[in-house]
Amino acid sequence: METFASRRRVWGLFCRPFLLNGSRMKAVLDYLKRNRRQAIKDLCDYVRFPSVSAQPQHRKDLTACAQWLARYCRNLGLDARLCPTKGHPIVVATTRTNGRSSRPHFLVYGHYDVQPPEPLDLWHSPPFEPRIAGGRLFARGASDNKGQHLAHLKAVEAYLKTRTELPCDLTFVIEGEEEVGSASLAPFLRQHRRELGCQAVVVSDTGMPDKSHPALTYALRGLAALEITVHGPSRDLHSGVFGGSVENPAMALARMLAQTRDDQGRITIPGFYQDVQPLRAAERRQFQRLPFQAAAYRKLLGVPALFGEAGFSPLEQRSARPTLEINGLTSGYQGEGSKTIVPAWARAKLTFRLVPHQDPNKVMRQICRHLRKICPPSVRLELEVGHHAKPYLVPPSGPYARAALCSLQQAFQREPVLLREGGSIPIVNEFRAILGVDTLLLGLGLPDDNMHSPNEKFDLECFDRGQLMSAHLWPELARAA
Amino acid sequence: METFASRRRVWGLFCRPFLLNGSRMKAVLDYLKRNRRQAIKDLCDYVRFPSVSAQPQHRKDLTACAQWLARYCRNLGLDARLCPTKGHPIVVATTRTNGRSSRPHFLVYGHYDVQPPEPLDLWHSPPFEPRIAGGRLFARGASDNKGQHLAHLKAVEAYLKTRTELPCDLTFVIEGEEEVGSASLAPFLRQHRRELGCQAVVVSDTGMPDKSHPALTYALRGLAALEITVHGPSRDLHSGVFGGSVENPAMALARMLAQTRDDQGRITIPGFYQDVQPLRAAERRQFQRLPFQAAAYRKLLGVPALFGEAGFSPLEQRSARPTLEINGLTSGYQGEGSKTIVPAWARAKLTFRLVPHQDPNKVMRQICRHLRKICPPSVRLELEVGHHAKPYLVPPSGPYARAALCSLQQAFQREPVLLREGGSIPIVNEFRAILGVDTLLLGLGLPDDNMHSPNEKFDLECFDRGQLMSAHLWPELARAA
Repeated sequence: METFASRRRVWGLFCRPFLLNGSRMKAVLDYLKRNRRQAIKDLCDYVRFPSVSAQPQHRKDLTACAQWLARYCRNLGLDARLCPTKGHPIVVATTRTNGRSSRPHFLVYGHYDVQPPEPLDLWHSPPFEPRIAGGRLFARGASDNKGQHLAHLKAVEAYLKTRTELPCDLTFVIEGEEEVGSASLAPFLRQHRRELGCQAVVVSDTGMPDKSHPALTYALRGLAALEITVHGPSRDLHSGVFGGSVENPAMALARMLAQTRDDQGRITIPGFYQDVQPLRAAERRQFQRLPFQAAAYRKLLGVPALFGEAGFSPLEQRSARPTLEINGLTSGYQGEGSKTIVPAWARAKLTFRLVPHQDPNKVMRQICRHLRKICPPSVRLELEVGHHAKPYLVPPSGPYARAALCSLQQAFQREPVLLREGGSIPIVNEFRAILGVDTLLLGLGLPDDNMHSPNEKFDLECFDRGQLMSAHLWPELARAA
Repeated sequence: METFASRRRVWGLFCRPFLLNGSRMKAVLDYLKRNRRQAIKDLCDYVRFPSVSAQPQHRKDLTACAQWLARYCRNLGLDARLCPTKGHPIVVATTRTNGRSSRPHFLVYGHYDVQPPEPLDLWHSPPFEPRIAGGRLFARGASDNKGQHLAHLKAVEAYLKTRTELPCDLTFVIEGEEEVGSASLAPFLRQHRRELGCQAVVVSDTGMPDKSHPALTYALRGLAALEITVHGPSRDLHSGVFGGSVENPAMALARMLAQTRDDQGRITIPGFYQDVQPLRAAERRQFQRLPFQAAAYRKLLGVPALFGEAGFSPLEQRSARPTLEINGLTSGYQGEGSKTIVPAWARAKLTFRLVPHQDPNKVMRQICRHLRKICPPSVRLELEVGHHAKPYLVPPSGPYARAALCSLQQAFQREPVLLREGGSIPIVNEFRAILGVDTLLLGLGLPDDNMHSPNEKFDLECFDRGQLMSAHLWPELARAA
């Protein structure tokens, strides 16, 4: 196991706790400790709102939830308002009670909407009636995302209630449409571009491997979607009468798909890896630090054996390497028994996960060129390019990342890990594109939080340490600004 | 173009019209000529019955149709009865009015049930109201199969009404469930095995390339069905979180399918072609005699280009060569847009068309062995073997085949062709298995008869010549017996 000191040489990390004033910080931390019960009570109140953005019958619950949140922010002393959108309102709450100041300014993003609770019969207690057991709070939205951004609000509360001057300005942007695609967020950011101008965005909406490994997520994979349709005969043909004299579109598709990846898990599209940076030794060491048991992982996924690109560990494969996934296949007859046809067409839905420095547009051109080249003349190829998201990377050696790592270290009293995550979080690209700033992903969730599943929970230790982390974060970020 | 004489050397064909008694045959043929209008009228009466076996509401129509047919046979002088089955009755009509004789005995098989007429709006006249136009009779069942077996009954009528002694005994077996799988036929054959013992079965339920090419179908392809399911993770997985560290079952399936056929259209399953006999030069010459225009055929199928096993013509590929067809593909998400998952499983439905001498069971073992061998350890393979049908071959140099060719030659005044058909007709295997005899497939249908489609028709010239062919057939077959 590496020591923190040895990693410092690699990442340029150096954690020297920065306290604007030792006694003031102590007051802030004491407040949090003293008000722990109230914080949990506030979170319970917050998760009681069934703010399910996907279900129209909950429209009023979303508004009520947003109003509750704005009121809560105002009670802290923040300047809070509801910004109407085409969908659900966005709650904006800021420390800039007297207009803009010369202090550095950071944005905290979160969302008050939650996933649908269904299937209800799998919940051990009602999803919108918070239940505390074993140091965990069970409720829909507890971890995703109410508990996580409330931790930041609680830290700000501690500053304001102890009359400790915040070393920076903060604006909370808490939206109500994250679970349905954040359609209103980009227009909102563009419209309030000046007001929201900031040094960086802080988002606690991801996770950490376990409580011993607080984490900063510094890279996300991008995404590119493609639908391939192979057209053969103008209609399904009788396979006895015509079969053999005409290409089977499903076979042509299978043969084409087989020519996009080899048996070593490597994508065989020419140029695909052109812009992929090799993993640095320091990054690979980070991966090695993460808790991972291959047998347990294999069992969790329910596969006979793990499989991925040769030369990389499963954690590297799933988060730091680009992939090609077939998400769906459709062709011909799919019912019971058999139907002796040559199907008229066959379709595959593909998504590619891309890693930092890969350009979705460039990659898509390479993919389409390759497919057109290998498509036999006996069928007609139709390619429909879908949505895409750029990969994301905040170099973890940058000053804000270092500040974030320091605050994690202080709050958890553990050496934080640097994570690359395999998924895509489109909003981080919006923040970069519209506000021109990086996002610090400081997730407080745990892998067993059941986000999007029945019995969602939030570990109250994560809630506590999240508040501490946030309390430490603002002086660290202000110093780095 | 070959001459008939030159083919004789190859096939051992020799057509010397056999007339038991020149004047008696003339009387039979004259009767058919004289009663042409009545024959068409009888066919019109027959096709008026909406004997749609697939639709329960037509149960009574099927019985009424069977009763009409039995009455018609009795009027000719045949001993006719309805044999009840679990489904619709089978009409049995025989010339053996006084018990078994020492004459050779032949079976004529047909079916009085028809395909559903839907979609009705595409018919130019009501499907069960026969309409004659341009020498064709339009009605559901006209070609498939009422007109075709009625031609044989008309020939027998001519013998019986002119008091011309038939040189053989004939038994008609006309069933009512052919369009729904002939479930009752095999039990019926087994139950009446002694009564139905015969020298050969005659079936007119196939087709000829055109009216200039009367045809004997001497080979059919067999069939073997297989469903392949590739199981990956125990549930659909998030492709961002897990993708890359686990095999994608749809990709594993595509890669396996791609390893079953090469880009020359040749099946790459070890041993698959082991029992396939090379096409003899004489057979290939028969194929060359058939009318075929590649451009028109390509247009008919609506494909950008024809494709099939290298080294064979399209007609050979679709009827005399074994094939592997993917009939259907199913995996993951198939709706609008995209869903970023690694699907839990992927499935392909396959059917193989087999040619004479291939054993479906043996071939299936080879296929399953190959798939198990190439399946990667990262997924679990499930193989479900479906139904199969043996390929069929009646050597066209045999005495009955030669007799059939002679009767075609005499009726059509054209040199008949020998056809291999690509489809499978399961009943011919039942006749061979239960009665131990070969079937002569003497189809009277034309490619544009719209069997199973709206505006089904039967060409009245085919009806006329079919009657003549049948009149000539019995003395020829009796002589060969």
